[in-house]
Amino acid sequence: MTPLPFFRSRWVPAPAHVRELGLDAGLPGGFRAAGVAAGIKVSGRPDVGLLVCDSQSPVSAARFTATAAPAAPVLLSRERCRLGALRAVLANSGCANAATGRRGLEDAAKTQGAAALAVGVDPAEVALASTGGISHELPVDAMLQGILGARERLRREGDSDFQQAIQTTDLFEKRANLELRLPSGTVRLNAQCKGAGMISPRFATMLCFVETDAALAPETADLLLGVCVKRSFDRASVDGQLSTNDTAILMCSGASGVAIAPESEDELRFGEALDALLRALAIMMVADGEGAGRIARVVVRGGDLDGAEAAARAVANSPLVKAALHGGDPNWGRIVQAVGGALGGRAGFAAPLAVDVTIEGIQVCSAGAAIAYDEPALARAVQAGEVEYEVGLPGDGAETEVFFSDLSHEYVTVNADYHT
Amino acid sequence: MTPLPFFRSRWVPAPAHVRELGLDAGLPGGFRAAGVAAGIKVSGRPDVGLLVCDSQSPVSAARFTATAAPAAPVLLSRERCRLGALRAVLANSGCANAATGRRGLEDAAKTQGAAALAVGVDPAEVALASTGGISHELPVDAMLQGILGARERLRREGDSDFQQAIQTTDLFEKRANLELRLPSGTVRLNAQCKGAGMISPRFATMLCFVETDAALAPETADLLLGVCVKRSFDRASVDGQLSTNDTAILMCSGASGVAIAPESEDELRFGEALDALLRALAIMMVADGEGAGRIARVVVRGGDLDGAEAAARAVANSPLVKAALHGGDPNWGRIVQAVGGALGGRAGFAAPLAVDVTIEGIQVCSAGAAIAYDEPALARAVQAGEVEYEVGLPGDGAETEVFFSDLSHEYVTVNADYHT
Repeated sequence: MTPLPFFRSRWVPAPAHVRELGLDAGLPGGFRAAGVAAGIKVSGRPDVGLLVCDSQSPVSAARFTATAAPAAPVLLSRERCRLGALRAVLANSGCANAATGRRGLEDAAKTQGAAALAVGVDPAEVALASTGGISHELPVDAMLQGILGARERLRREGDSDFQQAIQTTDLFEKRANLELRLPSGTVRLNAQCKGAGMISPRFATMLCFVETDAALAPETADLLLGVCVKRSFDRASVDGQLSTNDTAILMCSGASGVAIAPESEDELRFGEALDALLRALAIMMVADGEGAGRIARVVVRGGDLDGAEAAARAVANSPLVKAALHGGDPNWGRIVQAVGGALGGRAGFAAPLAVDVTIEGIQVCSAGAAIAYDEPALARAVQAGEVEYEVGLPGDGAETEVFFSDLSHEYVTVNADYHT
Repeated sequence: MTPLPFFRSRWVPAPAHVRELGLDAGLPGGFRAAGVAAGIKVSGRPDVGLLVCDSQSPVSAARFTATAAPAAPVLLSRERCRLGALRAVLANSGCANAATGRRGLEDAAKTQGAAALAVGVDPAEVALASTGGISHELPVDAMLQGILGARERLRREGDSDFQQAIQTTDLFEKRANLELRLPSGTVRLNAQCKGAGMISPRFATMLCFVETDAALAPETADLLLGVCVKRSFDRASVDGQLSTNDTAILMCSGASGVAIAPESEDELRFGEALDALLRALAIMMVADGEGAGRIARVVVRGGDLDGAEAAARAVANSPLVKAALHGGDPNWGRIVQAVGGALGGRAGFAAPLAVDVTIEGIQVCSAGAAIAYDEPALARAVQAGEVEYEVGLPGDGAETEVFFSDLSHEYVTVNADYHT
């Protein structure tokens, strides 16, 4: 079976200077990875991953969940690591090590120390990332066995195993091996990513690891990752649920010898590629959202930024809108309902709201009132795999977007019929 | 089949001075009602209801949805009616007359004028309430036929027909006929209510009409309705979706001759009964939530009021918590996730959040960390029809509650497989 092209969504075309390599192309120079099964997942599938940057002077950047209840690995990575100069990532699935208190922090620290010893770096250079069930204690012994096993298997082509080790309910791989033609030379950009449920637009519930052999200053890496995360994982919702463990890490080995200078054409092109990479991954997470059969983008224009943002997230997280999306039902009254509910009582959005609604280019509502439209054409349009809703608010101050999945029987099955 | 007692939830015991009358006891003195089928609903079931107060000096109060996109009947009732002295309500199901613009307002006004003529009152004394699909034009001719038919059938025992005429996806009747023993005498208190989907804690998506033969000053009626709506419909969520048409109206005929003086023992007792009535109705709406099989109450204590409110609504509207509730799964990690997500970035809730979680009296999480508990006992407890979650936040400033339903396959079926 030929794998789908990575840039498969109409919402993220591949930039002209970006070429997709095969998924067996291996990691960029300066990186090795591995993934092994250590018995943390009940299924026996891979669950401990190790990613190492062998550069003399590695550069990195990281972003974490905005939750008030972060998991132990997030707290430890954020507070104890040199996030601008990471040399390794220890990741596991099958246990989130969240809501585990001081014990969880201590368990995470043990694995951080073990991973540092195993790969010969400082513990502060090892970031941690966990995903899986909340409230369970991390099985430290299994983690240590996994670290030992992974160390033996570290290799340039280990990204596929690493990918397997970070997945949970994902139905398909979310990874990319890209080649970027920059003015100063050709560089590589890889990513391994997981995420299917507990995905919120405030920061998708996911892990994402990005490697490049380009050389970036720490400030550049941090700036680019921050901007691109805001335009990708921060714009994706499966169920509006903010996780305890979201983590995105960019690591730069510099092995290509191509340096990305600040405010250069190289930086612009590299940023474009990173942006497209993360946006495509975010849309893949939504498309693999638990039970998802159809995905959508809502674009809100007008009003102020807070209002537009509230409206877009209300539409994306409305179970009524999502159920209609699932059913292939052009029930745009639910869009009006969701927008009205989000903006009720807000200054600048007096009732009755003069809202416009357009679905797949067909306008159905003007200034808050139904208008005549081609009903058969709309009925056909909402049967597509990707559906676009546009919402216009009074005023012209803002524009925002959120990608989201539908609400299906399978979502209920995954989240209700499956017991902890 | 014996109807269930009205005060059936452990969360709302019947006040000692309140007695349930049979559902065939009829309306309080001074009221007549009717409901007829006018062909607005495709099913052919009753869809136009008329409620009339024959008092010389009627007193009333009303509350409406907080949406920025209110339906035409809400706009017209709120802006053009004498809400403190209503003599009639014209209600319909099968069409919400929402997102219908100026045409919708004109259509609503026509029916208001017709109803006023039919019952011999001023149009400003006729409140309008509609429920059904959004974006469809109100079939005015059918409404006028319905008004004529209902006028012929107005009677003291018409509350059952009126109830039928306001229902949509409701699976059971939500109405009560109560008798209140007050210090100054005995009065009646009736209600007819509908609501099953698009129910949000900011004001449940519902219609509720309450009649009493007690005599209240307009200020007293408004004060009591406002307080009791905040403690009932404003605390209920099926799907977190704020509707375009929510309406609650209290009408007082004074026919009993018992006057409720401000700040009297009568007012206290009447208020208690109204509070219990509306809270029980709100819980019934949640229990009849689209697809609901199990309902829950989340109580959040501590923090500040905004934080507690955000946390309670996040839990009540979390599809993950709701799916676990449906599956009878004590997955309390999702409670921590929802609370953490809601409070992330808020002042006063620094990470890691020291949150406590208790389910059905069994504490499972202390200061953000799992603790040992009786797992078989908890597994049994979450199989009950009503499940209570308690969340403790740092600090002791606030306490709030939200009632909510589970997320089931039936919810998806009702909202996705059913096409507009």
